[in-house]
Amino acid sequence: MERTEKIYFNNLDSCSEFDFLKNMAPFDIRNTDVQRVKSCKVSEAAGLEFYYAFTPVDGLILDQFQRLSDQQQVLSKYREVLSGVRMNTGENRMVLHHLTRGRVLANVEVMADGTEKGEFYRSEKLRIKAFSDDVRSGKILNEEGEKYEHVVQIGIGGSDLGPRAVWHALKGIVPYEKQMDVRFISNVDPDDAAMVMSDLDVKKTLFILVSKSGTTQETLTNMELVLSVMKKAGVKNPDSQMIAVTSETSPLARNSRFASVFFMDDYIGGRYSSTSAVGGVVLSLAFGYDVFSDFLEGAHEEDMCCLNPSVSENGPLLDAMIGVFYRNVLNMPCTAILPYSQGLNRFPAHLQQLDMESNGKSVNRFGEKVAYCTGPVIFGEPGTNGQHSFYQLLHQGTDIIPLQFIGFRKNQGKLDKVINGSDSRKKLNANLTAQMVAFAQGKSNVSNLSNNFRGGRYSSLIVGDKLTARSLGALLSHYENKVMFQGFIWNLNSFDQEGVQLGKILASQVLSGAEGNAVLKAVSDIFS
Amino acid sequence: MERTEKIYFNNLDSCSEFDFLKNMAPFDIRNTDVQRVKSCKVSEAAGLEFYYAFTPVDGLILDQFQRLSDQQQVLSKYREVLSGVRMNTGENRMVLHHLTRGRVLANVEVMADGTEKGEFYRSEKLRIKAFSDDVRSGKILNEEGEKYEHVVQIGIGGSDLGPRAVWHALKGIVPYEKQMDVRFISNVDPDDAAMVMSDLDVKKTLFILVSKSGTTQETLTNMELVLSVMKKAGVKNPDSQMIAVTSETSPLARNSRFASVFFMDDYIGGRYSSTSAVGGVVLSLAFGYDVFSDFLEGAHEEDMCCLNPSVSENGPLLDAMIGVFYRNVLNMPCTAILPYSQGLNRFPAHLQQLDMESNGKSVNRFGEKVAYCTGPVIFGEPGTNGQHSFYQLLHQGTDIIPLQFIGFRKNQGKLDKVINGSDSRKKLNANLTAQMVAFAQGKSNVSNLSNNFRGGRYSSLIVGDKLTARSLGALLSHYENKVMFQGFIWNLNSFDQEGVQLGKILASQVLSGAEGNAVLKAVSDIFS
Repeated sequence: MERTEKIYFNNLDSCSEFDFLKNMAPFDIRNTDVQRVKSCKVSEAAGLEFYYAFTPVDGLILDQFQRLSDQQQVLSKYREVLSGVRMNTGENRMVLHHLTRGRVLANVEVMADGTEKGEFYRSEKLRIKAFSDDVRSGKILNEEGEKYEHVVQIGIGGSDLGPRAVWHALKGIVPYEKQMDVRFISNVDPDDAAMVMSDLDVKKTLFILVSKSGTTQETLTNMELVLSVMKKAGVKNPDSQMIAVTSETSPLARNSRFASVFFMDDYIGGRYSSTSAVGGVVLSLAFGYDVFSDFLEGAHEEDMCCLNPSVSENGPLLDAMIGVFYRNVLNMPCTAILPYSQGLNRFPAHLQQLDMESNGKSVNRFGEKVAYCTGPVIFGEPGTNGQHSFYQLLHQGTDIIPLQFIGFRKNQGKLDKVINGSDSRKKLNANLTAQMVAFAQGKSNVSNLSNNFRGGRYSSLIVGDKLTARSLGALLSHYENKVMFQGFIWNLNSFDQEGVQLGKILASQVLSGAEGNAVLKAVSDIFS
Repeated sequence: MERTEKIYFNNLDSCSEFDFLKNMAPFDIRNTDVQRVKSCKVSEAAGLEFYYAFTPVDGLILDQFQRLSDQQQVLSKYREVLSGVRMNTGENRMVLHHLTRGRVLANVEVMADGTEKGEFYRSEKLRIKAFSDDVRSGKILNEEGEKYEHVVQIGIGGSDLGPRAVWHALKGIVPYEKQMDVRFISNVDPDDAAMVMSDLDVKKTLFILVSKSGTTQETLTNMELVLSVMKKAGVKNPDSQMIAVTSETSPLARNSRFASVFFMDDYIGGRYSSTSAVGGVVLSLAFGYDVFSDFLEGAHEEDMCCLNPSVSENGPLLDAMIGVFYRNVLNMPCTAILPYSQGLNRFPAHLQQLDMESNGKSVNRFGEKVAYCTGPVIFGEPGTNGQHSFYQLLHQGTDIIPLQFIGFRKNQGKLDKVINGSDSRKKLNANLTAQMVAFAQGKSNVSNLSNNFRGGRYSSLIVGDKLTARSLGALLSHYENKVMFQGFIWNLNSFDQEGVQLGKILASQVLSGAEGNAVLKAVSDIFS
């Protein structure tokens, strides 16, 4: 059945637990001992573990986190999401991305648009499996009877960053010869398409157009650019090499010339869509459907873990509370995400969207201005690369930036070698270990302050056995749910993005001459 | 002649102009009119223009900037850098990256290590030209007499981010068939090398090892990994496919089996090394030496512009002062770099290193703790991609993040098409225009606060005619000099990176068992 939103009377501004939390003194992490390292740990799905010994949290603060979480009804709100309540209040929509990977609440059906949505997502997955199997096996061929070798996803924002990050992360677990070559076109800058197409055999390429609304300016424009290149290359029926991922009501859904159309819907926000057809088609083509399926399984398993109401046993919930402590108690405006895994090289860019677009808001779910800081700036690059780049500021800059490390015990691939007594994996994790401890403990040097490290720089760690489809799914779900939980605590609607509208309106004014806004016209003239 | 440092008695803590600046009220950019858009502009090298109508700067503040710049002797310090004074005080080294692209102060010779450094860099450029010409023309062949097709640069930090960003930026201006295929291996994570090598014909690949000291753990480790793959692939003499870029005193310089060795020196910081052999070899192989030479010319031209002592006529100096105003007067801890150019997709990652590693410091050049905030967090992604990602927070988040846009009037490539009345270039720049104005003006909506935009969100713009080697060189120099000027104002040594040392020491302790530090051992055990 469809349900309407239950109104929560828990505006954070008037929440006494929040005020109380603000008076809590942070634990001094320079005093972290072995026992604390070992005990500050939460087990998550797919073997992931969340370590928080180097965060400012102690038992007293954990208790307060629990009170705040209970007071803000975080778990009830999660259950409402899972039950199909219209938690995206601004757009009056359900929030169903969890359902793309499985049913978290057993027997809870979610009806919308005349269909049970769990069944709908499942049937789309079966269609994706059938299609990707047929392309990969050569049952579906191009107009000259040849196998497709390349896939180009055309999409932007959530239709780009998530799938791209996941594709990067999983390239290393499937033998090269079993992969289709995958590329992405996102930017309306035509040099993006030009570069991607420069060495592409377009005749052997499938193009996936991804736009929920079917009206995204960048994506439609790039579709036309690609079609023009295909025609020039002598493709007779370019549409037949295109497939779409869109909603059933979009203009793209009605193009019957496409080879196939796969569906998501308005209940899946772009930044939460990697586990829907938005990620599913390209990943299944790239690696085979089973890899995508494992990815969903890991995410689903983590979604299940998130039902635990105990803050100290629910990693994403604890991570969310720690973030609130950084933001609202310690007044820290940024968080760095530092994966010690080259496969995760674009994962921070995805999390940047996920977090900043969800919680970068000044108005709560009731449409009132909030009186506290909300979402932080998120940035990051993989380690060890970052160590040779911006870590200088993290160690010795005038501001403290909280850090979140991600690491794995094993390599994805087989290439490794003992050099000077250790293999690369060991060196990589030794660096991660060293950084966490260096940030926390520091090292005093009073005679040479340039060489002095104050320490007390916070970090947490998510560690897994190996970066696989399953652990990646769990990791993605960790962040999706962390961001959602934080939104619940801050009382935001984390599922809309009204802030992108004004720019769209003004861009279209510029394109029609910028009449009536002299400043807009003057800036526009700079480019003419 | 070699010169020793002149001691400046201008610690910012005791600078009255700085205190005065802190009392200046910011200009309200919502009041920006057409005249201000047009007049707040500085011309730079290679046709670049710096627009600052949407920054909080007015005439009174500009006057104060000038006084602060004069008081901090910014231009004198720049001249000292150019003259070979040991401005990298911590390491007692000269700072000579400007000299890699030309002599900014006519007739000023810089002697070090028994050679005139301008001549030294020039002669290395000639060697790079000869070598890259020979490889590209097929005069230098592999052991089976075939032409080299691929180049893999193995380096990390400054040996990776800068060259990689420049390579991305220039791929679009050289016809695909005239380029060598270029890749980079940086991370000690062996999955990085595994991925890069997975589809590489190693027999037709030249490997460039880049490490100034010749002792960088990641780079030497990846060299060994690569050598093992080459041997497995049947390359008889793998060393002969390797070249090195290093200092003359490094262990790598003494490997006589390498095909060639090119030199930089201790006076070129890694993050300032793109215009030295560190960028020169790979870029000349990729695109031909002339492209690299144009790049240097643009940087040199901008270095010349930077001699102008007037803040309102010196773009990088003004940009630096505006950054100080954001940081120390308005207390803003982050800056976003937003290039509306897909070619610049990795440029923000390079600038993140350049800025955060240079000025992320708490101790001034005299070894004293500073009492003010220094370098900000730098992050960014290309537009329009970012619009569909983190711009929500930029528009409506609770913090104001100053923005720097970069744009161009023309495409790099030929692919473009009028669709719905405008081509992609026009759409791209319409979006850039719209964003700047939307951030500045906002849009009031009192009845629906979710749709309310406060405005007053600062941005500046660097615009060029087209992203070419020359304009890219000027753009790079803009940022290098901006960061240097900011360091001069904050009285930092922007040329060392002591903050990276502690992590290195602890990593090596971990690798030898972490004896004596129980917490280090406990964290290390997480990964075993």
